Amino acid sequence: MAVTGSPELLIVMSAHATGDEVDDVVARLEEAGAHAHVTPGREATVIGAIGERELLAALPLEGFPGVDQVLPILKPYKLVSRELRPDPTVIEARGRRIGDHYFGLIAGPCTVEHRTQTLETARAVAASGASMLRGGAFKPRTSPYTFQGLGEEALTILAEAREETGLPLVTELMDPRHVEAVVDTADVIQIGARNMSNFSLLAEVGRARKPVLLKRGLSATLEELLMAAEYVVKEGNSRVILCERGIKTFETAMRFTLDIGAVPVLKQETHLPVIVDPSHAAGRRDLVLPLARAAVAAGADGIIVEVHPAPEEALCDGPQQIPAAEFEDFASEIRALCSLMGRVIG
Amino acid sequence: MAVTGSPELLIVMSAHATGDEVDDVVARLEEAGAHAHVTPGREATVIGAIGERELLAALPLEGFPGVDQVLPILKPYKLVSRELRPDPTVIEARGRRIGDHYFGLIAGPCTVEHRTQTLETARAVAASGASMLRGGAFKPRTSPYTFQGLGEEALTILAEAREETGLPLVTELMDPRHVEAVVDTADVIQIGARNMSNFSLLAEVGRARKPVLLKRGLSATLEELLMAAEYVVKEGNSRVILCERGIKTFETAMRFTLDIGAVPVLKQETHLPVIVDPSHAAGRRDLVLPLARAAVAAGADGIIVEVHPAPEEALCDGPQQIPAAEFEDFASEIRALCSLMGRVIG
Amino acid sequence: MAVTGSPELLIVMSAHATGDEVDDVVARLEEAGAHAHVTPGREATVIGAIGERELLAALPLEGFPGVDQVLPILKPYKLVSRELRPDPTVIEARGRRIGDHYFGLIAGPCTVEHRTQTLETARAVAASGASMLRGGAFKPRTSPYTFQGLGEEALTILAEAREETGLPLVTELMDPRHVEAVVDTADVIQIGARNMSNFSLLAEVGRARKPVLLKRGLSATLEELLMAAEYVVKEGNSRVILCERGIKTFETAMRFTLDIGAVPVLKQETHLPVIVDPSHAAGRRDLVLPLARAAVAAGADGIIVEVHPAPEEALCDGPQQIPAAEFEDFASEIRALCSLMGRVIG
Amino acid sequence: MAVTGSPELLIVMSAHATGDEVDDVVARLEEAGAHAHVTPGREATVIGAIGERELLAALPLEGFPGVDQVLPILKPYKLVSRELRPDPTVIEARGRRIGDHYFGLIAGPCTVEHRTQTLETARAVAASGASMLRGGAFKPRTSPYTFQGLGEEALTILAEAREETGLPLVTELMDPRHVEAVVDTADVIQIGARNMSNFSLLAEVGRARKPVLLKRGLSATLEELLMAAEYVVKEGNSRVILCERGIKTFETAMRFTLDIGAVPVLKQETHLPVIVDPSHAAGRRDLVLPLARAAVAAGADGIIVEVHPAPEEALCDGPQQIPAAEFEDFASEIRALCSLMGRVIG
Repeated sequence: MAVTGSPELLIVMSAHATGDEVDDVVARLEEAGAHAHVTPGREATVIGAIGERELLAALPLEGFPGVDQVLPILKPYKLVSRELRPDPTVIEARGRRIGDHYFGLIAGPCTVEHRTQTLETARAVAASGASMLRGGAFKPRTSPYTFQGLGEEALTILAEAREETGLPLVTELMDPRHVEAVVDTADVIQIGARNMSNFSLLAEVGRARKPVLLKRGLSATLEELLMAAEYVVKEGNSRVILCERGIKTFETAMRFTLDIGAVPVLKQETHLPVIVDPSHAAGRRDLVLPLARAAVAAGADGIIVEVHPAPEEALCDGPQQIPAAEFEDFASEIRALCSLMGRVIG
Repeated sequence: MAVTGSPELLIVMSAHATGDEVDDVVARLEEAGAHAHVTPGREATVIGAIGERELLAALPLEGFPGVDQVLPILKPYKLVSRELRPDPTVIEARGRRIGDHYFGLIAGPCTVEHRTQTLETARAVAASGASMLRGGAFKPRTSPYTFQGLGEEALTILAEAREETGLPLVTELMDPRHVEAVVDTADVIQIGARNMSNFSLLAEVGRARKPVLLKRGLSATLEELLMAAEYVVKEGNSRVILCERGIKTFETAMRFTLDIGAVPVLKQETHLPVIVDPSHAAGRRDLVLPLARAAVAAGADGIIVEVHPAPEEALCDGPQQIPAAEFEDFASEIRALCSLMGRVIG
Repeated sequence: MAVTGSPELLIVMSAHATGDEVDDVVARLEEAGAHAHVTPGREATVIGAIGERELLAALPLEGFPGVDQVLPILKPYKLVSRELRPDPTVIEARGRRIGDHYFGLIAGPCTVEHRTQTLETARAVAASGASMLRGGAFKPRTSPYTFQGLGEEALTILAEAREETGLPLVTELMDPRHVEAVVDTADVIQIGARNMSNFSLLAEVGRARKPVLLKRGLSATLEELLMAAEYVVKEGNSRVILCERGIKTFETAMRFTLDIGAVPVLKQETHLPVIVDPSHAAGRRDLVLPLARAAVAAGADGIIVEVHPAPEEALCDGPQQIPAAEFEDFASEIRALCSLMGRVIG
Repeated sequence: MAVTGSPELLIVMSAHATGDEVDDVVARLEEAGAHAHVTPGREATVIGAIGERELLAALPLEGFPGVDQVLPILKPYKLVSRELRPDPTVIEARGRRIGDHYFGLIAGPCTVEHRTQTLETARAVAASGASMLRGGAFKPRTSPYTFQGLGEEALTILAEAREETGLPLVTELMDPRHVEAVVDTADVIQIGARNMSNFSLLAEVGRARKPVLLKRGLSATLEELLMAAEYVVKEGNSRVILCERGIKTFETAMRFTLDIGAVPVLKQETHLPVIVDPSHAAGRRDLVLPLARAAVAAGADGIIVEVHPAPEEALCDGPQQIPAAEFEDFASEIRALCSLMGRVIG
């Protein structure tokens, strides 16, 4: 028998499945243009389905009588996969680069609170060699009673900070109705962890002409993160930076648990750059440096950290922001480790 | 000493905090109009802060030097809390009710696939005594390659099904830009689990004049669910139904783990009705009835279940939909248990 | 080609696997007496391995060059599986029964604190129709500074309570060196959640001649629970009662999250009786009744609840123990629901 | 008012608590020799309890009428805490050291399979500069059908490997009845993740005169790990090495999720050395080096890795063992990073 493709799916029939039930599954596969390769057995017959991935994914095989398990053999993503494109993607914004041997050092305030705080922070991080400036204009907050960001006013302040420092700007988009305002100002559009599964928003930035920094959802698997990136790339925007920012676990000593293993796993699965956000993972300033060092050592393509001139007065995430005055030391520790790892700040 | 309020926050200073650090915290609290009640100690000084909840929540106390922990004493939600309104809220749509002794039996297809499937299902569930009709027009899907729902065409079909059966319509809203179309057709607007933290969308339905069915996020705590409801109610819409639909755990035998304890906990915390979605929790048809029975026995105000005329042909969630032909038996089991619990289908 | 068995394992080779790597896997399978069924493909070759489960499980196939995934097709347990023994097991101790249509109502103090408290509780639960008496002599405690149980002295008190009430006794074994003392006194030996993976202890009770009540580990999957039961049964003791007692999740409103779906899933997978511990799951007295009702409605074969004459004086788990004076009402609610479900207290 | 201690506990009364209920709590605290500091309030009265930690921990305050929450202010561990002993503990075995600026490089086979494999691996790791030899004699296995280790025969082989290489020996103890045999042979006694809450075993090694390597439970918090260490130290053995080895999360790309943040958190909380096991965390050989590098960069005091002469023939954990031939390169990468971090192999 000539098998010309490899199975996309393995369908394991239950021990009690009848011959008719096996035939029904085969018939449905063939109806969908797929080839069915049956391995009959005493206990469990296994059917390999060979065909177009999209067509097979759409078949409701788990609902068929006699079907016990449907095991996908191939990865559900393709455009973002390293198999498709073995060379690492380098993403550029205003001449700064992330990916391959360029390490991105993105720093700035959690939130734009006012002009002085933002400009002061921007100057400090630029002076210490950061490669991009981060800053929140629209803030997703768990409570409707806490500060929600300055919105469009913040975008104006951030644009001024970019003007002065030359650093490209990373800022978050939360609502598809703000897409124009954010895309106009931002150099890199951030999609926050709470919006990783906001599929309308993903499709929207997939049509934008700016790179996207996509954060992993608070309890998303890496496969789900890659699928979210696939949503963006499928719409035409292949400039996506993935960001590990900590996941929910039972541990309470830190705000989230930084999944450091995500870095080598993602680097193996995808050609997209992978960065780490140690500030949100830790939620505690004293852990930001050890986690940032671990990120570099694990092979990350960059980090994104929060910096504030006076963290104890911050309106948001004060406990995890690094004082601007200490950022220089922080940056040189990172630079030394990058150098050992064969990287340069991009 | 006259204490006129009770502490909203307890601030535990670290063992090494200096007197100046304690004074700084007190000064900042008083600056914000709060009263600070200091309990000095050999190891850890504790400061109770008495004042306006919103003002205190905005203070970045965790970032202050010498502060070890900030413990909130009061719940972060208030409009949805049972303390504010001890009597249970009853929510009505086209004469059908959910809450107090009215049990909501919401049933219908996962997704509107075509006119026949939808009308057939609607008739079956109406005939068996369902009190509302569910059906998806816009579907959030993890993969960009799977069926995303028929969109506005589905809304027209659902409206026809309502016309014929008289059942009020529950359908999901995913994108703030669809709000008009969905609000025009739906009797109850569903916010899906993946959008529980989509704060723009929550605010949007908070301004709509239709009840909202709010599903718990896949790894959200009950407090986070109540805060999401608070977002909606704060905008003026107090007609919110909460829905437990299973959370992510390590267990793989079911798609999600139904948190049955969420029912009595939520009933105690809030005046809003609390329903259960056994179909999405289980992901397997054979578990839907036992989970639905458990929901009634635990005191839920309703259930929402998926029904399909031929689940093995469903384009979405086939394995968990109940065949329309079996819904009558299902409904009578639920009715018997409701009756033991002192409830009637609303 | 004559295939005489069904595959136990599917070995998915990576896209880059060479022909030699495929041949090596096949050779190793055949060396182990298994038959290898190769489905070659453009992207991923799949090898089905047909042979003795134990032999295949021992092969380190995941370590072979070119192997991408090893997918087990059959369940790893067999002695406890319903496929082996389709009829439900009924477990008897001193004439009381659990399983099939006998519902076990096990009640008693968390811990034996002193003679009076234990006897008083035993009388109250016996009078209200409990079918077995629980009580802890050895207590696993997270802190070395808290009360660890009265040990052998408690066993003597429990034996007296049994003498007086006639109720069979359920008590926990924690240390293989106490096995004789506990087995001598207990009618049912409890293995606590923290010892579910204490494989030496499991083997030990597998050699005892008393039924075993095996609690699910705090973050164990149902498959892991069934494997733990398999350890016991494999040593010759097939009288095992499984107990769902709540798992760790992110939710903090309850002590643990009762996985109510575990009941129908386990009932389907195994012939062993399945009971629920609502007291430890909830950690709060007010949730014990709703969770207990949910357990009955979901099809559990019994519940095990904590009762104390004066919970506010309890040395352990005070907040979750039901006052002895309220147990009669509790028991009659359970009895009414059992009756609707076609069960009788065994 | 003279407050002579700091509160150990804060007891938050519910909004509806009566004056009598407050008085009852105060009376019970004073009965236990504690001082009660009451902060009355409009909504929630808070009682600070000042007294002996052990006495307060034993009080069942959560069960008292009117009590809403009991918040412990001080850490539940003390002997292991850095507050008690600010200087880092250095642990020595046969002249090799772990802690402070000594980095432990522990390597060896997952399991002793036979003499040749063990001696060959021991020679390879010794030649590349490992500081200790690991090897399993007794293996905790989820399935009763898989290889359980060679037991005492393995101890003899390990002793021979130590004799030849001079490396101190780390091996696991699973059963209190093997304590003599293991303590006689081992230089460091390992307590595995599945036994972290086996309190009898912890007390047992607390009485042994050998250092203990204590692994974090699969879903244990860091506080629970520190409490387990407290069990050991309380019995008199203060030579405990803590080991982060990955925790269960929703992620499936790796076997466990390495909680890299555990390293800086533990280093801050305790004076005990903290090491990392990248092999068990990853479950995949290709991730062991990046995770090991991250551990060094995060400040770990050592790593423990699995090495095998021919991983594809290993009887256990083949996929995660590093080939002995590649260990030299591995060790030099670790050494280079240690040097940047100011550490030497101990």
